[in-house]
Amino acid sequence: MTAKAKQEVSLAVVRRLPRYYRFLKNLRNSGINRISSLEIARRMGLTASQIRQDLNCFGGFGQQGYGYNVEQLKNEIEKILFLQDRLPAILIGVGNLGRALVGYLSNEAQGISLIGLFDLNPKGISEINPEISVMSIAALESFCSEHKPKLAILCIPENNAQALAEKLVGFGVSGFWNFSHVDLRLDESVTVENVHLGDSLMTLGFQMHTKQTNNK
Amino acid sequence: MTAKAKQEVSLAVVRRLPRYYRFLKNLRNSGINRISSLEIARRMGLTASQIRQDLNCFGGFGQQGYGYNVEQLKNEIEKILFLQDRLPAILIGVGNLGRALVGYLSNEAQGISLIGLFDLNPKGISEINPEISVMSIAALESFCSEHKPKLAILCIPENNAQALAEKLVGFGVSGFWNFSHVDLRLDESVTVENVHLGDSLMTLGFQMHTKQTNNK
Repeated sequence: MTAKAKQEVSLAVVRRLPRYYRFLKNLRNSGINRISSLEIARRMGLTASQIRQDLNCFGGFGQQGYGYNVEQLKNEIEKILFLQDRLPAILIGVGNLGRALVGYLSNEAQGISLIGLFDLNPKGISEINPEISVMSIAALESFCSEHKPKLAILCIPENNAQALAEKLVGFGVSGFWNFSHVDLRLDESVTVENVHLGDSLMTLGFQMHTKQTNNK
Repeated sequence: MTAKAKQEVSLAVVRRLPRYYRFLKNLRNSGINRISSLEIARRMGLTASQIRQDLNCFGGFGQQGYGYNVEQLKNEIEKILFLQDRLPAILIGVGNLGRALVGYLSNEAQGISLIGLFDLNPKGISEINPEISVMSIAALESFCSEHKPKLAILCIPENNAQALAEKLVGFGVSGFWNFSHVDLRLDESVTVENVHLGDSLMTLGFQMHTKQTNNK
């Protein structure tokens, strides 16, 4: 499959791939080697036709009446998601959330290589990962010109996020994982994934309130 | 509008409401009092008819040719999302992520009142919020029976999450904001919002890779 074909896959399908991937890893770790689309559907709360359609976007890996080979399908999704690559990434804003993400990125995340940490006051920060020192935000430009990070993870207050993101695009960064409470507006060539934890919490609260009232 | 009508609103609409809410708060803070659906659409990257349709689900608050009153619309969404309520919540697992969330919940989040923090080893944890002490997970049952938290925020390893969530349901908890890397399976009367940061990161990486290849 060409990269062009991949790009044309809808974002909704792409967003389901990590779920398939987690699901297949868990299956494999439980010693299950083969699974039907019907069984995937049942366990994941999707329809079997949805699953066949999703996986067909990427060429399909199942055999009629025989199901999917778990390991093979997991490996294919790993390739599709480029998880064997190591996108060079920097994280900016080493507060509690930044530290939590460093832990995750250093120990669990795939497809990413964390190469630098930045903060306004790097001196006040105790060591997090002995292999990655915390630098001053003032050093960003020279660091980027030397090490060429592609991805920036923003854990900074919302009032600074847009301006800093624009600077980083100028320094060659082409993707943002944004935890600041603002929707970044950047050139279309830049990819932005905004993580709005507050939105998630509000949605949860709404559902709890309406369920409660209806259950009475 | 009745609670029944609210429940029937699709989850897709509900998920957009916090975005409208954030957007309207920013407008209000910038001193803008009135806005057309067309202008909301342009700034939020949605279509005007989408916006009118979304807001009509809740009765609609605009006047033809006159636009929306920003403050009034913000207040209506605040009510719809029950943000003036204070859902009693507990957080379990006070690591870096837990601490980051405590900061957010104590200072910024609306609609929630954090009433207890729990950890396997509460003694090793320095004080976070002087008003909320960190208790042992062993104390959960008695705490729940006395203080009746409705929402539990899980920041614990995935292998413990399902069993603990089931216990908490038994203690009266009816909603979970789940940061453990596992999709919780609970009774339908329970609301679960799974936050899978890894999925978000994988989606971002995929988009960066495919854009890059296509831009070459």
